[in-house]
This record gives sequence, structure tokens and C-alpha cells, in this order.
Amino acid sequence: MQTKQKQGLSIQYQDNTFEVVLDGRKILEHTPTSPCLFVGQGEEKIEMYRGNYDIEDYVVERFGLKSFEVIEESHQGFRIDFKRTSMDSETLSVAFSYENQNLKLNFSGDREAFNRFWVRIAADSTENVYGCGEQMSHLNLRGKHFPLWTSEPGVGRNKKTYTTFLADVHDKAGGDYYHTNYPQPTFLSSKKYFCHVDTTAYADFDFRKDHYHELQVWEVPSQIMFETGESIKELVSRLTQHLGRQPELPEWTYDGIWLGMQGGTDEVQKKIDAARDKGMKVGAVWAQDWQGKRVTSFGRRLNWNWQWDENEYPKLDQKLKEWKEQGIRFLGYINPYLILDGELYKEAAANHYFVLNQQDEIYLVDFGEFECGIVDLTNPAAFEWYKGVIQKYMIDFGLDGWMADFGEYLPTDAKLHNGEPAMLMHNAWPMLWAKVNFEAVDEAGKTDDIVYFMRAGYTGSQKYCRLLWAGDQSVNWDLDDGIASVIPAVLSAGLVGNGLHHSDIGGYTSLHGNKRSKELLLRWVELAAFTPVMRSHEGNRPTDSHQYDHDEETMNAFIRMTDVHVTLAPYLKDLVKENAEKGIPVQRPLFMEFEDDALTYDLQYQYMLGEDVLVAPVYEESASQWNVYLPNETWVHLWSGEVFDGGNVEVSAPIGQPPVFYKKGSEYADLFEKIREKYTPAQ
Amino acid sequence: MQTKQKQGLSIQYQDNTFEVVLDGRKILEHTPTSPCLFVGQGEEKIEMYRGNYDIEDYVVERFGLKSFEVIEESHQGFRIDFKRTSMDSETLSVAFSYENQNLKLNFSGDREAFNRFWVRIAADSTENVYGCGEQMSHLNLRGKHFPLWTSEPGVGRNKKTYTTFLADVHDKAGGDYYHTNYPQPTFLSSKKYFCHVDTTAYADFDFRKDHYHELQVWEVPSQIMFETGESIKELVSRLTQHLGRQPELPEWTYDGIWLGMQGGTDEVQKKIDAARDKGMKVGAVWAQDWQGKRVTSFGRRLNWNWQWDENEYPKLDQKLKEWKEQGIRFLGYINPYLILDGELYKEAAANHYFVLNQQDEIYLVDFGEFECGIVDLTNPAAFEWYKGVIQKYMIDFGLDGWMADFGEYLPTDAKLHNGEPAMLMHNAWPMLWAKVNFEAVDEAGKTDDIVYFMRAGYTGSQKYCRLLWAGDQSVNWDLDDGIASVIPAVLSAGLVGNGLHHSDIGGYTSLHGNKRSKELLLRWVELAAFTPVMRSHEGNRPTDSHQYDHDEETMNAFIRMTDVHVTLAPYLKDLVKENAEKGIPVQRPLFMEFEDDALTYDLQYQYMLGEDVLVAPVYEESASQWNVYLPNETWVHLWSGEVFDGGNVEVSAPIGQPPVFYKKGSEYADLFEKIREKYTPAQ
Repeated sequence: MQTKQKQGLSIQYQDNTFEVVLDGRKILEHTPTSPCLFVGQGEEKIEMYRGNYDIEDYVVERFGLKSFEVIEESHQGFRIDFKRTSMDSETLSVAFSYENQNLKLNFSGDREAFNRFWVRIAADSTENVYGCGEQMSHLNLRGKHFPLWTSEPGVGRNKKTYTTFLADVHDKAGGDYYHTNYPQPTFLSSKKYFCHVDTTAYADFDFRKDHYHELQVWEVPSQIMFETGESIKELVSRLTQHLGRQPELPEWTYDGIWLGMQGGTDEVQKKIDAARDKGMKVGAVWAQDWQGKRVTSFGRRLNWNWQWDENEYPKLDQKLKEWKEQGIRFLGYINPYLILDGELYKEAAANHYFVLNQQDEIYLVDFGEFECGIVDLTNPAAFEWYKGVIQKYMIDFGLDGWMADFGEYLPTDAKLHNGEPAMLMHNAWPMLWAKVNFEAVDEAGKTDDIVYFMRAGYTGSQKYCRLLWAGDQSVNWDLDDGIASVIPAVLSAGLVGNGLHHSDIGGYTSLHGNKRSKELLLRWVELAAFTPVMRSHEGNRPTDSHQYDHDEETMNAFIRMTDVHVTLAPYLKDLVKENAEKGIPVQRPLFMEFEDDALTYDLQYQYMLGEDVLVAPVYEESASQWNVYLPNETWVHLWSGEVFDGGNVEVSAPIGQPPVFYKKGSEYADLFEKIREKYTPAQ
Repeated sequence: MQTKQKQGLSIQYQDNTFEVVLDGRKILEHTPTSPCLFVGQGEEKIEMYRGNYDIEDYVVERFGLKSFEVIEESHQGFRIDFKRTSMDSETLSVAFSYENQNLKLNFSGDREAFNRFWVRIAADSTENVYGCGEQMSHLNLRGKHFPLWTSEPGVGRNKKTYTTFLADVHDKAGGDYYHTNYPQPTFLSSKKYFCHVDTTAYADFDFRKDHYHELQVWEVPSQIMFETGESIKELVSRLTQHLGRQPELPEWTYDGIWLGMQGGTDEVQKKIDAARDKGMKVGAVWAQDWQGKRVTSFGRRLNWNWQWDENEYPKLDQKLKEWKEQGIRFLGYINPYLILDGELYKEAAANHYFVLNQQDEIYLVDFGEFECGIVDLTNPAAFEWYKGVIQKYMIDFGLDGWMADFGEYLPTDAKLHNGEPAMLMHNAWPMLWAKVNFEAVDEAGKTDDIVYFMRAGYTGSQKYCRLLWAGDQSVNWDLDDGIASVIPAVLSAGLVGNGLHHSDIGGYTSLHGNKRSKELLLRWVELAAFTPVMRSHEGNRPTDSHQYDHDEETMNAFIRMTDVHVTLAPYLKDLVKENAEKGIPVQRPLFMEFEDDALTYDLQYQYMLGEDVLVAPVYEESASQWNVYLPNETWVHLWSGEVFDGGNVEVSAPIGQPPVFYKKGSEYADLFEKIREKYTPAQ
């Protein structure tokens, strides 16, 4: 048995086995029957239909790199040269370099000989793992595998639901538990390390085996990084040191709800007046149709040409200023596609700014009822031009923010300006799209005043995406695609460094008979009050959906929950600041605050809002009581003031009083008491 | 370039490529980028729920055997030694031996080092392939892959149908296009060769690639056999020389319909009387409950203890003789399982005749609402005992035949007397089960007088299974699981040597709201008239299903179609004889008779009944006209006498007059004319 030790990194080896230990954690174990590396060749078949991908892989070859040689290399580490057998000519060299609890594995040698790569990370059978981007069905990823490919997340997302069946049959759109707008090849282990693979290739992380995690990547990656921490919190903070952190939100974002509405200047004015007259604190209106609509055979759609539509929104240029003076901001909408024959399309086409197809024509993508070109963000000139579009038509026009939608639809047979295969750029697209937005705002010096929000993501979103939203939930109670799913979504996204998150109040997708009920909308607005941003959405079928202004009870609920949210603003701002400075997400899984409590590691429908507040949203229909797990601590029930000592408790949870608890000694207790005094009638 | 030639077998090779040509057909092509053999290791995960298998494979390693050496060996052929690289130690040796258009590849060397094996058979992009056992969704297998594993065939068998969705969600039972009771690792190519793999391991034949077929087997098989023929017909005949052929059917089987009925002696007598009084030619009654019933919470089920139940069928021993004298045979039911605590179960248990679980206890299998032991057919004593059960309680008792049901449920974690892994014996079970029945009848000297019919099958069914039935169709019009599916079923089964086939008239499975309609039953009885055997089934929910005696119109249709069938008997008998002597199936795809007509190769819902009769069953609801493709020939429409010259024709096809045509010069024309005269009213 030989040993090499470099600070916290050690390798023990003899004959044909070795073990790599990082700060006391075994991370690689290599034996002839279970080598730590496999490589091979695959032939993928990929079909896209409106952002839904059907991906099949035919693995032509896959073999373990069983033979190895350990070579002393630098003062920070060592190198291992891997071969299938000692007789083989192809070598994969892995340099191990360690510094400050961080281990980098850098791959060199015959990387190009293989387009499939698998690494086995040593695991314990009791270990939990988290992350992989924004996961909407599972927080603890153990026991499942997670293909990592940005796409539509699916409608239903569970092959056992009828909604999923119908979405599959009609639109190939049902999805499954792993489909997400925001995947990321990063996971955190309860053994207190994270692992991040530096790749944008298709990947599939498999956490089904007892003794190893097998990470599949459709290239030999250039680098895999591990880092250890004393706590999960420290891990996330360390991860964001590498990947980046979100700046704070503009001050005005705390001033009230952002009301989603459409229909033109008069309609918006009418809704603002009505809400304000009732006493609602409206921080912003969000009008996704600011650039106009397009009437198709299916009805009203947005016009994907990102310039003010003066017909739809007359005098908007003046109104913006007026509303801002009254304390109401105005938010718009953009995405990385341009509608065929719009003005911007013509300009981009003339300048060759579009992604091309294999025939060197502009690649037109079907978005449901119309076709669009994709601005080629790998072309520096196109990137700058699109940044300019945002600056000229949105920032200079006076928008205070926007939904920066989509980013998942890059076809894999596209031709790109940078010459990279679209298979490798597909996952990179959400980051590039975020970067355009980031730089447009940053270079305009407006980071303190403007915010945009995105659903698509990948590595890099941490740095370039100011705020996530959870994408397009179905307007129902389904665990995998309804209101509940936004909770694992925020928690998993937060664990990989995206600390600011919110969701469409009421959900978005009405299809196959699903219609948004009043109860769902009311439960969603009370959930949203305990997130950094409250924003409502009319849904894809506004007339089929219950809306905040459909009756007085709903309006009052919105007024009340907005007031609760605004009351919490000092607390929320401090959390947002902590996220900006340390990368600690505003909403956190319980185990981040109570690491020693084993029962918290599988709780995916409760969360901590900062250190002091525990939120357990009601996500089932017709509930009036709710079961909550409270870690060992003295908790005060927000609405009743009742004190709990921890354990499983059942509390009253009528609509308007979601289960929320704060720590008895919280320095923000006065805020929470203010809420209780105002909203809980005297006994 | 070097060449070795042995009669019809040649190999050309140089450096690292070779080609093997058999009678002018390239069957192997080996290059460094596309080696013809791959081997590796897999770890399967198999879950069974009531005969439905969920099979996942984790392929740990797979690599091409790129290095080869050609060695002159015997007077009949040569040997090739394969390795991954010339440096590797593991060798797979393949001996090629040729005789009379037959090529055998025998594998030796380090076979045991691998549990996964893939061979690429050279293909043309325009080639069609057929076979793989009894395939119910596809006759031409090109463009799809076919896992070969005997199992329940699925309810719905198409992930786009609601029935399949419900069956999946409720019982994991929806199935897919490839699920079948009878798979077989044999295919026929339109290049006029067949390929048969000598294995009972799990296999998956993949016909999706343009330039090769890739056959996957979960062991390195001992032998792969190829044989060429001048025609498809010759190929099938040659195949059955190797695999065996069915004896002729007993004479009495042509005497009329076999009516499925239940409920005891009196009920059967009543039904016989009613049918005969109306003039129906009843050849047999088939009473699956002859051994009694078992009342469970779900209602009436069969009692799986294969002895006459005197309470349910009083005086059956006498009645059998009486009915036989009147020309009506009596058929029963058996399967390879014994119900817990039945008399036979006790006897088998006492003698240790059951398959065991990993704890060495009797392996009890859940059949829906009760548990059974599996007679261990790998134990010669148990095999003989079960044969004796059939002889004593069924043959000696006086049964004239039976449904020999099931055979697909051998759990993969069972322990068997012969020490073989259950993974390898699972697919062999249907053959063993057929063999028990075959020997029981054969050794009793009753082959001319008794017949049994089976749904499960595998290699060996050709020899041991007297008659197939198409299994449990849904009682509807779904292409993949309704009436239509029995046509590809009979044609694919016939192509691998099973020339005698029929189906449940009316179908079997009523689940999830499907109920058998009158129209479906009428279309099915007219289809059945043009198969070797007509047998009705009450279905799994008799009271929900339209039955032959539910109204006068239906009764008359049964009388009429039975009469047509009996009229055809001389023709059918000759076809059955041809099948026994040459292995040419009674029902054949059109391309077997019209090989030069390229349009016939994808017709899977029409068939030839022998050389002279073309049948195009109506398998859609509410049809009164039907489109038929007629190869170039002079055809006479059976019902109208109208003459057609070939091509696409539309004919009138009211219920009772399915599209049937015969060749104008047929030597059996008088039979067909007799039918027309009797059943077509004068114009």
C-alpha cells in the first residue's frame, strides 16, 4: 500500500486499486470490478417538439479504465494516468490539485477519443444528495437519476396522471420528474462536499446505486471540482464563490405586489386604480403584452418583436413616468427569439445575426403557432446588438424590469457562429441569455433600479440571472406540477447558488380541462407572501382562471397578503443582502439550518425563510389543518402566537393563515408580532 | 485481400476488416468502426407484477471485438478468433460451418467472461424483417426493436391509448408494441435468409439501423444459425426442419365451432341444446371451469386444481360420452400452476415438485386474487408427475382437449431443480410447458384425437405446441390490442414455424370500461371462419360482453359462419396437412405467395389462407365498404362472384360478408361456389 498526501488530499494505492480521500471524505474508489472512470462512444438521437426533447442514446462502446499509474506532479497534487489495460494506447490523464478544501480534477490526454464519459463518485448508502439545478419533483435526489438538459419542464410531469397522459398524446409535452428549465451538473452531498462538473454537454447524474454516484457526461469534461465545508451553508457559500452571486434587488421591489395584467394602457390604468382604491400595495405592474399582440387562429398571442406597440399601449412612454411617480413600476417581457417578419427580425436577418440550419438558412423554430429566428448569442456582434435592443427599446424606453423568458429551445442540429456543436451549446444558452440581460442592465448602470426574471438556467445563472421564477406550473394541486412543486424548485435552485426565487401566483398552465380555482389562487398568494417577490400571473387562459380581482374575498386576500409581505420587507431585505454577500439563499431547506436533525433531510415541502422563519405552505385542496415538522427550537406560530417546542405538530391553517413559525428570540420578532396584531382578531 | 471459400460460404479479409457472404448474401461486415461483435457486462433489474415485467439494464461495459484472426479449420468452414485488441487476453472463437445452405456460428473461448453480447448482422436499408415469435403490433419489424421475453402481452399495448394508460396506472399492465406471450429469437429477412439464435436468455433484436441489425443477448449464445432459401416459403419450411412441425389436427376439429361456455353440466347441456336446435354445427364445447370455481371477493374465478369438480359438473364423466356420441367433444382447461391448498398442490408440495424461492420455500406467485405454486418442470420427476396429472385427470377422464394456459410467469429470482438461473429458464418455460402437454398426449397415443392450445411460446413451440391461440385481446377495435392485432399475430407466428393459429372469438379482456359490442363479436366470428379453428370465448366479464346467444341475429351469424367454415373443411384439412408435412403455415402473409410484388411486404392486416384464398378481415367499427389490395392475379370475390384483376379495390363488406377472394382457377373453386350459392341471395 502506497500513500500520497497533499494537505487535505490523499491517495492510497496498491496493485490495481486506489482510494482518493478529500478532507476525510472518500470521493473515489477504484477497483478492477468497479473502476472509477468509464469512457466510450454513443450515438444520440434527439427530437424536439416545441421545447420538449425526446432523447435516445445508443451506447456503442463503454469500458472501464481499469489500469492506472499514479505520478507525483506538482506541489499541490498528483496525476493519475488511466488506460483500459496497460497494453492500450489511449490514455486519460487526471491531474488532482488541492487548495483550501477545493479539489480540481483536470482531464487531459485522449479526451477527444471518447464522446461518452462516466465517473463513479464513492457514496454511502445513507448519504443524501441535492441540487442538479432547479428540480421540481425531488429535493433529495437519492434513488433516482437526473438527465440534465434544459427543456420545457412538462405538463403534468408524472406518467401516472391523466394530465400528463393527455399532454403526451396531444403535444409530446407531458414530461417527467426530471424535466426542468434549469438543470445544472452540480450536486451537494450530506457528506458535506459539493461536486461540480465543468461542462455544457448533455449529462445524466445517477444516484440510484448504494456505493457510488455515477455521473454521465457526453464529453470528457475538462474539469470536475469538489469542495468540502463544515456545513451545508458553508458549502453553498463556497460554491457561489466559484459560480457567482446575485446582486441585491432594487429597493422598489419590496414596495408591494407585482400585478400581472394585459390589455393596453387603459386596461392597466383601470386595474391600477381599482387595486389602489381598495388599498392594495401595488409595487409594479407586469404587462407581458407591452410590445403588442398577434392574433392567430388560436387566439391572442404576444408579438415577439421587442419594441413598444403604440397601438396596444398608447402613451405608454408618458404613463410609465406618471406611474413611477406614484410609486408603481412597469415591467415588460422579452425572450431570445424574434418573430418572422417583425422589424427586429429583419434587422437581425440583414446582419446575419441568426442561428442557421444545416442548409445555412435562418433556423426557424415553431413556437406553437408562429415561427421565430434565434439570435445567435455565440456571435459577439449579435450578442452586442441584442444587448443594444434591450437598452434602446426597453431600458431607455423606461421599463423597470421584465420577464426574460425561454432559452431552452436551441435545436441540436443548428449551426452556430462560434463553430461549436449545438449539442454543446444547448445547455449553455440559458446562461448566454442571462448574460445578455445582465450586461444590458449593468452597462446601463441600472443594476440598482432594474430587475429581470428568468425560468431557464444553467451554470452561470448564479452570476447573470438576477431572479428566478419557477416556470409554468399547472393550475392545480398535482405534486409534480402544481403549487407544491415550486417548493422543491426554490430549495434545489438555492442549494446550487440561486438565492432569489419566486413563482407565478396562481400558476400558469390551463390545459386539458385544468382551470385555476379560487382556492388555488388564495393558497398561492399566501405562499408568495413568504418569498422575496410577489408576482401574479393571469395564466395562459385568463378567462378560464380565477383572478385576483374576480371577487372581493380574493381582492382582500391579495391586499392582506401583500401587506404581510411588505411588513416583512426589512427581514427580507436583510436576507437578500446575505444572499448577495455570502450566497446563502433566502429560502432554504430545513437541514441547512438544522443539520443535526436527521428528520429534516427529506422535507421538501417546508422551508426556512432565513434563519428565523419556518414556512410550511398548504398545497392540498380543502385543507383546514396542516401537519408541520418543527425542529428542536422554541417556535411561535405567526398567526396565533402559540408557542411550540418542536416535533410533529398539527396546526389550524385556514385560507389566509398558512403555517408560518418564527424563532422565539428572533431579533425581527417585532415585525412578526406586528403581523399577528394586525391580522389575528383578538380571542 | 484474402479470400476463403467453402461452398456457399466465403470470407474476404485484409488488415482489420472482413465480410462474410452466405450464398451471395452479405451477412457479416466487420470494420474497426463497426465491428460485428460486441461483448460486455450488464446488471439487470427485473420486477414482475402479475406477469408484467419491468426490465431495466445497466450496461456496465460494452466493447467491440475489433481484432480478429481467421483460421482454417475444418472441411466445412473456418474459425475466427476475436479479441478487443490484439493485446487482450480474452478471446471469443467463432467456428463457421456450412452445409446445404445452412451456416452455423458456434461460439467458444471466454464465453463466460461476458453476460452481454451483441452481434451486428449486415443489412440493406430496403430490407424487411419478420418473425421474432408472435408479434401483435408489427409484421415487418424494421424500424423498431423487439425485446424478447415471454410475459403478459399488455392491455392496450400502445402508450397513446387511454386503455393502456389506465392499465398501466392500475395494474402496471398496459404493455407496449413488443410485449407478447410468445417471443422467439428468430427472424426472416426479405434477403431470403433466416437467422436463429440458440438461446433462452433475455434478448432484444434491434432493426432500427440502416446497415445492420443488432441482436442483443444476455449471454454469449452457443450457436447462431443462418439458412438461405429460394423463397420465403422455402425458408419457413427449412426453419421448421430444424425446429419441428405441428402434427395434423384431429378430424373432429373440423366438425363445427368450439363454443366457450361455463356454469356446470346443466348449463352446458342447455346451451348445447339451444345451439343445435337452431342448427348450429357445434364441434365441441370448451368449459374452462370443468375443475370448478373459486369464489373470491372479486367474484367467480377458476379453481386451479386440475381435477374434475363433481359439484360444479355433476355426472360429467357420463355426459362426456353422451355428447361425444352426438358428435360434440368436450374441452377443459389447465395451466402450469397449482392453487395453494388444492389437492394437487399438497401432493406436489409433499414431493418437492415446486419451484423454490431464495429462502428455499415454495415460491408462491400472485395471480390476481390467489396464490399458486409453480410445478418445477426442470425436475424430471415433477415433469413426469405433471404429465401423469394430465393423463390421469384429463385424458383418462375423457377430455378431448384443453386450453393449456399461461407459462410466462416464472419469476427471475426463483430456484430451480436443474440449477440453471431462472433468468435463463424464464423464456424456456413455455416450451417446457408445451412439452408436458405434448408428451402426455403423445405417450397416451391420443395425438390423432386430442388437441390443446396455448398462448405462451418460445423456440420449441413448433414441435410441442399443437395449436396457438392469440391470447387475450381487448374487446375493442384498437389496432394494437383489439381484433386487428390477431392478424399480425398469426402471420408472424407462422413465419417462425407455427402454422396453426386461432383466436378467442370476440376477444377476452373487458377492463376500464371496454365492453364487447355485438358488432365486434360479429366481425370476429366472420374472421374466425377463415382460420383453422373457430372457438368462442365468453370473455373475462361474461355479463358485460355480447354473447353468441344474446339475440337471434348473433345466433344466426354464428350458425352461418360456422357453416362456411365447415364447408371449407376439405380445403383447410389440406392446408393443415401441408403444414404438418412442410411447415408452411395455414395463414400466410401475402408476400409468401407473391414474392415479386413489393407492395405486399408491409401488408399486415390481410392474409392468404393457403395458396388460393385471400382474406382481408374488417377490423374497424361501422365499416360497410373495405379497401383491399389484390396482387396481380384473377380473383373471384367470394360473396358476389365478381372478378377482379388485382390492385387496390374497394368492396362491399357488410357484416357477414368479410372481404374474401379466391383464385379463379382454384381446384377448390367448387367449395367456394357452394358458399356463394348458399349465402348470397340471387341478384
